[in-house]
Amino acid sequence: MKHLIVYAHPNPDSFNHAVLETAVHALKKKGHEVVVRDLYGIDFEPVLKPEDTAAMKAGQTPGDIRTEQEYIAQADAITFIYPIWWTGMPAILKGYVDRVFSYGFAYAYGEAGIDKLLQGKKGLILNTHGTPKEIYDQIGMTEGLKLTSDTGIFEFTGIEPVAHLLFGSVPSAGEAALKEILKQVEDTVNTVF
Amino acid sequence: MKHLIVYAHPNPDSFNHAVLETAVHALKKKGHEVVVRDLYGIDFEPVLKPEDTAAMKAGQTPGDIRTEQEYIAQADAITFIYPIWWTGMPAILKGYVDRVFSYGFAYAYGEAGIDKLLQGKKGLILNTHGTPKEIYDQIGMTEGLKLTSDTGIFEFTGIEPVAHLLFGSVPSAGEAALKEILKQVEDTVNTVF
Repeated sequence: MKHLIVYAHPNPDSFNHAVLETAVHALKKKGHEVVVRDLYGIDFEPVLKPEDTAAMKAGQTPGDIRTEQEYIAQADAITFIYPIWWTGMPAILKGYVDRVFSYGFAYAYGEAGIDKLLQGKKGLILNTHGTPKEIYDQIGMTEGLKLTSDTGIFEFTGIEPVAHLLFGSVPSAGEAALKEILKQVEDTVNTVF
Repeated sequence: MKHLIVYAHPNPDSFNHAVLETAVHALKKKGHEVVVRDLYGIDFEPVLKPEDTAAMKAGQTPGDIRTEQEYIAQADAITFIYPIWWTGMPAILKGYVDRVFSYGFAYAYGEAGIDKLLQGKKGLILNTHGTPKEIYDQIGMTEGLKLTSDTGIFEFTGIEPVAHLLFGSVPSAGEAALKEILKQVEDTVNTVF
């Protein structure tokens, strides 16, 4: 299988980076191909501009968007790894979706409604957040976070969400708890792919 | 009352701009003060960088962040106007929250948990989206969108959400329907403030 991992964290020493390394290692061990797009690392431009929309309408997709679309087109599975900030994605990843998942590439309006142009691909999301998991579960935030990513982005374009792990209390977690999270990441990658 | 309106749409001819004009006009008619921060207009930088975090930890908030924080500090009410893209905010607005609602300005960790540092302010959100309202209501997305903005951003920092209007099917709406939306915006502004 060919994997694309889209990773968004500003700090290379972060726990999210350990999640990334664990996922990459587990996938490669299974013999899968892995491409990582580190959005901070490539200094991805996240603001969808009127010029982008005009260029795409004229059939001339801007180069940086086309590059990312080619990685998506070649992937059998797409994994997003990011910290939950303000109950959403870091802006650099939100802007990746705003710009790269464009009309005509990720979806289109067909005769029978939305044409989901990324069908056949699998989607995985790995998140950390500061709030305890119990609180997010209790107030419906865990469900809200899944709706605004798995449903609103992946399913809208035909990507099948195979798992979405949300790890709470990460900034205050001890070493054993963090190790357990990485074990869960490894187990999930091994199970769903 | 002093109002801050944070507006995020790339196109000055958009219906979101008409929503903005309607809100500004209604507030000024009531004799309120209004400041508009047009994030595309000021080319706001949305990516929270390690340098930002380091500078803020050292007590030296970057100039562009400090400017926006001063507008927030002076406001009695904060209104966000934006189109729902991919069941979230446009990246430029998400990054405004990521960078401007910083630790020590919008919230802090106190002895009894989170200190909500923006208490006493009111919050209003005005959104457009393409999907019909009935579908978003039915699948829980309307609730998910409120959780990931009113709850996750405004309430987390102590801002009291006074209303959140989500208008569906906007791209396909006729002139009468759009006029009715602007009427609802005007009525809401007149009622909640």
